[in-house]
Amino acid sequence: MSAKRADPDIVRAALVVIGDEILSGRTKDKNLNYLALWLNEMGVRLAEVRVVGDHVEDIVEAVNSCRKNYDYVFTTGGIGPTHDDITAASIGLAFGRKVIEHPEAVAVMANYYPKGGLNEARLKMATMPEGASLIENPVSAAPGFQIENVFVLAGIPAVMQAMLEKLRDRIRGAKPVISQALTVYRGESTIAAGLTALQDALQDVSIGSYPFFRPNKSGTCLVFRSTDEIAVNNALDEARKFLKGGDIPFDEGEPAI
Amino acid sequence: MSAKRADPDIVRAALVVIGDEILSGRTKDKNLNYLALWLNEMGVRLAEVRVVGDHVEDIVEAVNSCRKNYDYVFTTGGIGPTHDDITAASIGLAFGRKVIEHPEAVAVMANYYPKGGLNEARLKMATMPEGASLIENPVSAAPGFQIENVFVLAGIPAVMQAMLEKLRDRIRGAKPVISQALTVYRGESTIAAGLTALQDALQDVSIGSYPFFRPNKSGTCLVFRSTDEIAVNNALDEARKFLKGGDIPFDEGEPAI
Repeated sequence: MSAKRADPDIVRAALVVIGDEILSGRTKDKNLNYLALWLNEMGVRLAEVRVVGDHVEDIVEAVNSCRKNYDYVFTTGGIGPTHDDITAASIGLAFGRKVIEHPEAVAVMANYYPKGGLNEARLKMATMPEGASLIENPVSAAPGFQIENVFVLAGIPAVMQAMLEKLRDRIRGAKPVISQALTVYRGESTIAAGLTALQDALQDVSIGSYPFFRPNKSGTCLVFRSTDEIAVNNALDEARKFLKGGDIPFDEGEPAI
Repeated sequence: MSAKRADPDIVRAALVVIGDEILSGRTKDKNLNYLALWLNEMGVRLAEVRVVGDHVEDIVEAVNSCRKNYDYVFTTGGIGPTHDDITAASIGLAFGRKVIEHPEAVAVMANYYPKGGLNEARLKMATMPEGASLIENPVSAAPGFQIENVFVLAGIPAVMQAMLEKLRDRIRGAKPVISQALTVYRGESTIAAGLTALQDALQDVSIGSYPFFRPNKSGTCLVFRSTDEIAVNNALDEARKFLKGGDIPFDEGEPAI
């Protein structure tokens, strides 16, 4: 696979999930899966995720490592008004930029709250690294922000998702990954040798093999992924031949990602 | 918070989730949350999570970085019989150890399958770095394994959870984190200043602030976490005083983690 990673037609992103509540088990993250699917649609591949707690040095390290290695970095969480919201300060440190009351963010929020409602805590949400460009928050006003290839989003899924919609024209994807799947009613071990031969013959398509255990039937879901639709269809044909040849029952139409 | 991290009474773990299917959005990871709660119970803190795809070099880098930084590392996924299961080979590389057909694993699996059933694909699941100690799999026989502080587990949640149960006597935790919570019926911005003062006064307790939006009521859940139960109870008392003093409505009894 690693040869493909130097392909200029592939755009790759990382996600840094920020929050003690994810690592303590209090909150189940919902943003990873949503972002993965959204990025697919944009022609960008989610290539790595890190989850870190509310510690400045951990956030700085994760963001600095990811922004060097990937085309885009998204962060979720830690941009609220309380003492444990330290994402903006950490991103400032990561970029070596001063953190200021961002005039445009202050204006957005002053306009949103009733007169006199922009208290010190709310002003904290307008405090971000100098030169950041805002990401609109249509749900609750307090904006996210972008610096270079790093996009700082809210942790609350509804807000995070609304912010992503505002980013469509800032993300330049490449060819989206096309995928197709087959549902095979045999365990992985029975088809593994055939699959290995198939994968060796089909260098442009990556074949994922996922066992499933459903109430009445168990088996293996095969997912064929590539940026080349013809190659995916060809892989499906080859897989069908292999399965029919071995008298291995299968169904079409499994949803594939 | 960072001062606490040098505390010898704190044992920290990382999780490396391995699998293209998580990053593509096909599969929602369920192991992070389960492991977080299980580790809490064991007196170990989950301190970092990384999700990487089915690429040897990414797995090696994540595991090598985490095993230096944390007391324990858990991996999930990629130990099945097919071509895309590359975790055992990657862990071998990470430790600079040869990967062999592990005699004990072969024996376990030969015993599990009907005579002649231990085909080449299944034997792949007995292939692991030299000197690994097995982790029993009571669900489907193919074992996980441990090398030094790294525990290699299955990705299928039922199997991963059953393997964890077999590890209780190999994990040496410290004081578990005690947590208590209050449900406050005010937005974060209204109580942020008071919370900051409270956090500054209570250095032994970390206060998490989590907004919630429920059909009839919105507000903020406050979670007080510490290894010191007396400190947590003291923090709760101080928080109640602050809330009553400000005429801020709240409830007791929110589940806390």
